[in-house]
Amino acid sequence: MIAVAVTGAKGRMGSTVVEAVKAAPDMQLVAQLDAGDEINTDTVCAAQVAVDFSTPSVTESNVHALLDAGVHVVVGTTGWNEEAYERVRVHADSSGLSVLIAPNFAISAVLAMKFAAIAATYFESAEIIEMHHPNKVDAPSGTALATARGIAAARKKAGCAPIPDATESDPAGTRGGNIEGIPVHAVRLRGLTASEEILLGNPGEQLVIRSDSFDRIAFMPGVLLAIRTLTQHPGLTVGLDVLMGL
Amino acid sequence: MIAVAVTGAKGRMGSTVVEAVKAAPDMQLVAQLDAGDEINTDTVCAAQVAVDFSTPSVTESNVHALLDAGVHVVVGTTGWNEEAYERVRVHADSSGLSVLIAPNFAISAVLAMKFAAIAATYFESAEIIEMHHPNKVDAPSGTALATARGIAAARKKAGCAPIPDATESDPAGTRGGNIEGIPVHAVRLRGLTASEEILLGNPGEQLVIRSDSFDRIAFMPGVLLAIRTLTQHPGLTVGLDVLMGL
Amino acid sequence: MIAVAVTGAKGRMGSTVVEAVKAAPDMQLVAQLDAGDEINTDTVCAAQVAVDFSTPSVTESNVHALLDAGVHVVVGTTGWNEEAYERVRVHADSSGLSVLIAPNFAISAVLAMKFAAIAATYFESAEIIEMHHPNKVDAPSGTALATARGIAAARKKAGCAPIPDATESDPAGTRGGNIEGIPVHAVRLRGLTASEEILLGNPGEQLVIRSDSFDRIAFMPGVLLAIRTLTQHPGLTVGLDVLMGL
Amino acid sequence: MIAVAVTGAKGRMGSTVVEAVKAAPDMQLVAQLDAGDEINTDTVCAAQVAVDFSTPSVTESNVHALLDAGVHVVVGTTGWNEEAYERVRVHADSSGLSVLIAPNFAISAVLAMKFAAIAATYFESAEIIEMHHPNKVDAPSGTALATARGIAAARKKAGCAPIPDATESDPAGTRGGNIEGIPVHAVRLRGLTASEEILLGNPGEQLVIRSDSFDRIAFMPGVLLAIRTLTQHPGLTVGLDVLMGL
Repeated sequence: MIAVAVTGAKGRMGSTVVEAVKAAPDMQLVAQLDAGDEINTDTVCAAQVAVDFSTPSVTESNVHALLDAGVHVVVGTTGWNEEAYERVRVHADSSGLSVLIAPNFAISAVLAMKFAAIAATYFESAEIIEMHHPNKVDAPSGTALATARGIAAARKKAGCAPIPDATESDPAGTRGGNIEGIPVHAVRLRGLTASEEILLGNPGEQLVIRSDSFDRIAFMPGVLLAIRTLTQHPGLTVGLDVLMGL
Repeated sequence: MIAVAVTGAKGRMGSTVVEAVKAAPDMQLVAQLDAGDEINTDTVCAAQVAVDFSTPSVTESNVHALLDAGVHVVVGTTGWNEEAYERVRVHADSSGLSVLIAPNFAISAVLAMKFAAIAATYFESAEIIEMHHPNKVDAPSGTALATARGIAAARKKAGCAPIPDATESDPAGTRGGNIEGIPVHAVRLRGLTASEEILLGNPGEQLVIRSDSFDRIAFMPGVLLAIRTLTQHPGLTVGLDVLMGL
Repeated sequence: MIAVAVTGAKGRMGSTVVEAVKAAPDMQLVAQLDAGDEINTDTVCAAQVAVDFSTPSVTESNVHALLDAGVHVVVGTTGWNEEAYERVRVHADSSGLSVLIAPNFAISAVLAMKFAAIAATYFESAEIIEMHHPNKVDAPSGTALATARGIAAARKKAGCAPIPDATESDPAGTRGGNIEGIPVHAVRLRGLTASEEILLGNPGEQLVIRSDSFDRIAFMPGVLLAIRTLTQHPGLTVGLDVLMGL
Repeated sequence: MIAVAVTGAKGRMGSTVVEAVKAAPDMQLVAQLDAGDEINTDTVCAAQVAVDFSTPSVTESNVHALLDAGVHVVVGTTGWNEEAYERVRVHADSSGLSVLIAPNFAISAVLAMKFAAIAATYFESAEIIEMHHPNKVDAPSGTALATARGIAAARKKAGCAPIPDATESDPAGTRGGNIEGIPVHAVRLRGLTASEEILLGNPGEQLVIRSDSFDRIAFMPGVLLAIRTLTQHPGLTVGLDVLMGL
């Protein structure tokens, strides 16, 4: 039995994780913490692994507090940057603990990101369209950012030419954002949950990779997989794909 | 037999129109004019209808010259604005001739625009993604602009609420352009010709209307239909849908 | 206040209707009936309108019983044929009551069907792909059947040629079903609720109309609209589009 | 310089290959053969590699004749089965020559097939929709067959459960074909060239991988890559992915 704590336990994702951990035959839920609760060796109740779905403003301090309390951490909260990664990497290495930070726990989204990075070196053009419900406050999504960066890194490594674009006039800004050379578009539409479409183009052909998450339950298999396999990857890991062995 | 002149006859669209008119059993091609050729009663060679696929910088002066030469005009060139429409409207009315200016002659695109305007009043959210080859110099496409304006006008008339959007942070500009309240995104991808996707959303449901033009031949049935039916609509007409009776 | 009864009230759709009627400010839920409950003037409790989401095997007898009890009826159950329609038409006419039988109450699906019928006469090819969760026992969906019939009727009226298809060899039956000349394909995929895609093709162009229902709440606006406007359409009406004025 | 022969050189694909080989700076076109031409050491004119885009009825005998003439062979013709593969395998092995038989040379289609096989083990449901122009005589496409077999083999190896499907009634056959447990649907639509969509589903999520070939030029990079790298893979190779190192 793996002893599991959840931080951000009252949020929508956190409470879904609470239910999923309770339902998992090989896990025991030992602590539920939320805003206002201190994180220390007492409050984590001997948890081996903690799952953090809190908010961008507190997630990094949660992770450091959990490491101080001797707990491995699975992080689903977005809003991380390279500097924050580096601070967690140092802390995890010195403590001998494991941290996974993943922009997305949906298997379909993780596969889409991985496939996009593999495929992108074979195509002249690559663009990303992410689509979410209209209550989302930030754009683009963490998944789209990670996908764009993965594509950009793969193309740079393979020596690909810049993406062709003859646009001279775009007064309204319809060409969207540019993330490390990859155009990214964010759609907000009532009825959708979270979708991402990666478009890759060559003369005479197109490859489209699309992932749709219709419901938060789509993320639970990935969260449970992370809880189970995290400790095989000491230090900081970014992206569920590493734990999936992709 | 309808006597037809083509202006911009050496361009990619113009030369396709030349072939389509030659192949039409009820039409006779009487003049092919391009940059450098003057447009007057002599050079139009008694054409009854002219088709202009020239460039944004000369299309309006072409239309006025054709009206002065006593010729009805079908215009496929983009780059028009309200002031230019008004000048052509006055000229066409005073001359008793007909002018059709259409942002798109593909039947699929015209139907998509029409359906989008009808459907948009039933949904909370509406966004447009237009996709073209990466050699296109302007964004968004004339079709996307016309679609956005049609949706905006229909929603205003029906008293629809503004489209919901909680975005607070979008440093890269991924939310795209805003055309009269309708978000518009422009994708440029090698391999594509011209596509448009209209997304409409309500709680629990989505309607997607998509048109794809894979080849310039897709525009020819609409151009021929315009040549044949234009004179039944005196003055200025904007949009092929009017001639299709939609 | 409209007095409403629900038959099939314990089913998934029926119970969603029960909640929607309770939440509607202009309606009063007066009766909930399910399998085993008799339908008569006593049990319908003076309902003006009944909503039937029962099962194919009992829906027609439910409708006749409700008409006998003097109640207008909105029917969402599938499995109807022309003979059953005719029996209800006669009964409704003689009783002076209204019956709406609709294969789909989602606004997106109703619009998709309507647009498909309008557009289908402009294209050489038309095919339907319907996609549902894998627990569905019948294929194709009632919506796909109604869409195919609507397209077939529009093409017949317009004198369209048969859809081109050079297939000579298809040992596995991958070309799907043929409903009045329109190819129909049924996909069953975990994760989906109910989607329909109508593909229309011409040389060089394609029009795709797609509706997605992600959740049963997508059907409630259409059900409430039917309850409110049904009595303006005496006799039998098939399809929500008639009540929407499309 | 690689000396290249083309068999089926007058067909649509064959003539496109002829042009692509002529345009390749590292290749020399030494022979063009078509129906009626004998294939032997004289007629292949010292070709090192031959490309066969002939017809299902003659492709196997072409390959054996080319091997007898001492030429490596790249085959794009469809219609092969296991027995024919085996005969070619034996012949290639005994002759020390290389044969590549690929159902599709479009990079997008090859990647789609590969990704589908990797992803399919993570999902409950998997279905394939292939879409082609309506002049195609066989269904499903060779690409769809290969994709289905690749998915089936991967799922079998991983011990996946059968795909869920509760269908009890499907009088028109809309559930399509079943290729080794994978449902396959074939659409024929004017305007399309060759597209394939692979749908993968789990509770609450969906992954869609789609490849579109709009034009025969999409296949040329793959054909040239095969001509250049074929000899590094002695014996029979099935699928361009092996030569791409995927």
